[in-house]
Amino acid sequence: MGYRIGIDVGGTNIVAGLFDEDGNLLGKSKASTIKTSSAELLGQLASLCGELLEEQQISGRLLAAVGVGLPGFINSETGLVTAANLPLQDNPVAERLRRLLDVPVTVENDVKMIVYGESLRGSGQGLSHVLGVTLGTGMASAWVSEGRLHGGSGGLAGEIGHIAFTDIPYVCGCGMRGCLETVVSASGVARQARDGLSSGWVGLLADRFPPEQREELTSKDVWQAYQDGDAFAGQVFQRTAYWLSRVLVPSVALLSPDVIIVGGGVASAGEVFFEPLRAYVAESLHPLYRERLMIVPPSLGEDSGLYGSAEYAAKRLIV
Amino acid sequence: MGYRIGIDVGGTNIVAGLFDEDGNLLGKSKASTIKTSSAELLGQLASLCGELLEEQQISGRLLAAVGVGLPGFINSETGLVTAANLPLQDNPVAERLRRLLDVPVTVENDVKMIVYGESLRGSGQGLSHVLGVTLGTGMASAWVSEGRLHGGSGGLAGEIGHIAFTDIPYVCGCGMRGCLETVVSASGVARQARDGLSSGWVGLLADRFPPEQREELTSKDVWQAYQDGDAFAGQVFQRTAYWLSRVLVPSVALLSPDVIIVGGGVASAGEVFFEPLRAYVAESLHPLYRERLMIVPPSLGEDSGLYGSAEYAAKRLIV
Repeated sequence: MGYRIGIDVGGTNIVAGLFDEDGNLLGKSKASTIKTSSAELLGQLASLCGELLEEQQISGRLLAAVGVGLPGFINSETGLVTAANLPLQDNPVAERLRRLLDVPVTVENDVKMIVYGESLRGSGQGLSHVLGVTLGTGMASAWVSEGRLHGGSGGLAGEIGHIAFTDIPYVCGCGMRGCLETVVSASGVARQARDGLSSGWVGLLADRFPPEQREELTSKDVWQAYQDGDAFAGQVFQRTAYWLSRVLVPSVALLSPDVIIVGGGVASAGEVFFEPLRAYVAESLHPLYRERLMIVPPSLGEDSGLYGSAEYAAKRLIV
Repeated sequence: MGYRIGIDVGGTNIVAGLFDEDGNLLGKSKASTIKTSSAELLGQLASLCGELLEEQQISGRLLAAVGVGLPGFINSETGLVTAANLPLQDNPVAERLRRLLDVPVTVENDVKMIVYGESLRGSGQGLSHVLGVTLGTGMASAWVSEGRLHGGSGGLAGEIGHIAFTDIPYVCGCGMRGCLETVVSASGVARQARDGLSSGWVGLLADRFPPEQREELTSKDVWQAYQDGDAFAGQVFQRTAYWLSRVLVPSVALLSPDVIIVGGGVASAGEVFFEPLRAYVAESLHPLYRERLMIVPPSLGEDSGLYGSAEYAAKRLIV
């Protein structure tokens, strides 16, 4: 055993956390993501690890494993990483970082690491079957059953944002039309609100965003308008919950999770989103599922991914 | 190690199979299901085991485990079995059969055992992530990943027939309205055909089933009419494929199976069903999934459940 570090790499910020061998978080370090080149990004990750150890006055020799979660696709056969919002294209991140740090390293998708962390230490703690969904810039899921993170064929499990529905009219960044992510995500919430304003909604959102400023509208603005009493803004979250339920309902019947943890920017809207979500899911399922299933937000905040990647690395790399 | 027996209990017939310690099927025995009482049914299962051993001239002392698959719900905590079409209500089947045979016994849901058998020895052999669906009188699924059969919270995973859709008008036997099973199952196929005839379809099916005989129409009649050239009959299978795709699409994005094995009476219709099914699933998924995923019929015929339950018992009970 030994100390481990978990790193959550985002398109904007990087957070790293140092954990002791019992999985307790000892300290964190945060920085703006360097995106100039893969070498500089990897150097930054190594530096953050060094800083953390120094701050906690722990020798690098006691560091046993490092786990990285990042918003990208990791080829499960080759280990090569491709991330659209980072300077990484078919990049052997784990191997390169291992050489820089002289410590074994795992690299996995950030949503998988967030859900893994929540399953072990967050809203899924003590439960056997955990489905996690994050609604941020995009939308994705991860499935942890009896402590095992599921990868699926080709490591492709979890891309539930790219299910196409014929009644969703928008073209997705992935090239398909009608992807769930175009409505169920932070950008999807903003898009729904912009569409509503174009169709003639009146109220706070309309006053705050005249036509020429609508492109700047974000999901946070929709939430703020709801908080301030705009009924249309509330409807956007209800509609988003409805859309999400269309993928959660079959997932529940298929897998019978103990809990579905829904996180990310949209989910932080709280009960205006969760209450209709629970109702939509319940009304399409057999009562036996409804009685068991919990649908809740995450409980570790920005640390979910740190716990997840540190524990994942420890489980995979420390014997 | 030692010999094992797998038993597939249906509402009409029971089939039992004797396997050697390498999992080779040595012989089978078949009988009509006795439904008078649980004691007589359990006695019948014990007799079938005795017959099999005798036929193969194998001493009962060499029998190491018996696995039973049956169409019912098995409480994963108590082991009690409830099956609507069998004389079993909160019945400790495994424990009672163990006493009759003096051999350890597992009892599991028949669909789970069929899919487990197909994953090990049938269309899923050699593949890591296998989703199985059976479309018989009802509709259910099972998920086998890296050799592990998934039960889910409360053992409730797999009841995908009881997902309610607002655009399905029928009331299900479970009490809900709009369950997928009311259209995607053998009885669902017959129901779709009856509805079509009521709405004025002409052709072979209409000639063969005048209004006063429509209640007798079965999925086999629909298939026969299609074979004989009735275009409307073909449409019923296409429509069934469309409905099934609505639950398979999210399942693929969630889990990324290597293969989806679709069995049961409806699936035996063949390509008139599988070809549109593959097309409907493909058109709603990202190309990365389409390239990997296979959607195929089972390959072990009526023996899937025998292989499944025998292997399941061996894995759970033989050390």
